[in-house]
Amino acid sequence: MVACIDACFDCAQSCTACADADLGEPDVETMIRCIALCHNCSDICISTGRVLSRQTEFVPQVARVALQACIEACRLCGDECERHAQHHEHCRICEEVCRICEQACDDALKALPT
Amino acid sequence: MVACIDACFDCAQSCTACADADLGEPDVETMIRCIALCHNCSDICISTGRVLSRQTEFVPQVARVALQACIEACRLCGDECERHAQHHEHCRICEEVCRICEQACDDALKALPT
Amino acid sequence: MVACIDACFDCAQSCTACADADLGEPDVETMIRCIALCHNCSDICISTGRVLSRQTEFVPQVARVALQACIEACRLCGDECERHAQHHEHCRICEEVCRICEQACDDALKALPT
Amino acid sequence: MVACIDACFDCAQSCTACADADLGEPDVETMIRCIALCHNCSDICISTGRVLSRQTEFVPQVARVALQACIEACRLCGDECERHAQHHEHCRICEEVCRICEQACDDALKALPT
Repeated sequence: MVACIDACFDCAQSCTACADADLGEPDVETMIRCIALCHNCSDICISTGRVLSRQTEFVPQVARVALQACIEACRLCGDECERHAQHHEHCRICEEVCRICEQACDDALKALPT
Repeated sequence: MVACIDACFDCAQSCTACADADLGEPDVETMIRCIALCHNCSDICISTGRVLSRQTEFVPQVARVALQACIEACRLCGDECERHAQHHEHCRICEEVCRICEQACDDALKALPT
Repeated sequence: MVACIDACFDCAQSCTACADADLGEPDVETMIRCIALCHNCSDICISTGRVLSRQTEFVPQVARVALQACIEACRLCGDECERHAQHHEHCRICEEVCRICEQACDDALKALPT
Repeated sequence: MVACIDACFDCAQSCTACADADLGEPDVETMIRCIALCHNCSDICISTGRVLSRQTEFVPQVARVALQACIEACRLCGDECERHAQHHEHCRICEEVCRICEQACDDALKALPT
């Protein structure tokens, strides 16, 4: 769970930075989907990381839907960044961080009490 | 969709305020679950409200999981606030706002392109 | 204070929507500064709105710096949106919402206990 | 700047966890100020970390006020956590992380272009 929380905050930061770096690219018109997915992924990672950080009254049902949302957001953002990874170093890094977060969320989801 | 975005931001504010007001109650030890659910709901409402606000490259798959998470967070938070609604005015209000947001998210979910 | 909290959440939503709408404009390269300022303003408005929503243990020193940050973020975002207000309806609206939030934060700042 | 961004996201996570752990303490009534300051610090750290992550159109005036708010929020949260550091391990850790973030923000503030 600690690994998953760290991964969520890392991914939030990486996605915010990638969305911003996209704005400075000469081919910004082709990066619009990447920007949108990065922003969405960053917001969902922050909320998921915070939900998982709250352990005193941990509510598995909330953790479950937050993790499911985060897995999907990371997957879609990672797929889009992968398309640009060869031209843009920030997309290559962001894809990597998204994949790590997706995997960490998937592991955390499987470890949730049913 | 606009109604749903407004409901998400309203609910985020209401949940932040309710979690804080709980801290000032003499029976704070009995409000711990309410505080946790309010914080979680507030964070998920913010991320959902922002995801839905991004319409230029709208990605229905992300909107779907965000809405599903928000519905569950609002439902659980509303249920918990309902238990305290008779003693605490802020819980009565927060329950109401959570129910509105849950319904708005449910409507938006049904209206998503498949 | 309630007016200021509402203004912060409204402005957060408006800035997120404006930054996104900028991405769909044919002159997106000229909107990069607007996008950056809108994102910054949205994030600062959320954190300020939440800080002000916490009244049980209200700490004026934190409220003061949060409000000062919000005033500056709204002022700069409003100024940039004003430059595009004639071409882009979302910038015209966003400027208006930023000015309201800036004023509400300024009023709240003056009303803080010293 | 990279160190400061990392410190902001670390501190946001630590403050969210500390505020939550406070809720599980038997002396929760004495931790109310700690909870409030931790939540405020977490929100301001997130917004500051994101503002600083946006380098393509970096606006020093926004960075300045965000950093000033973050320094004050970390200082007050660190001071409060210090008071509880001997009884609560999470407060000891959170104080440490707040001090690191305050220092990193102070360094970043001094390095801003005037």
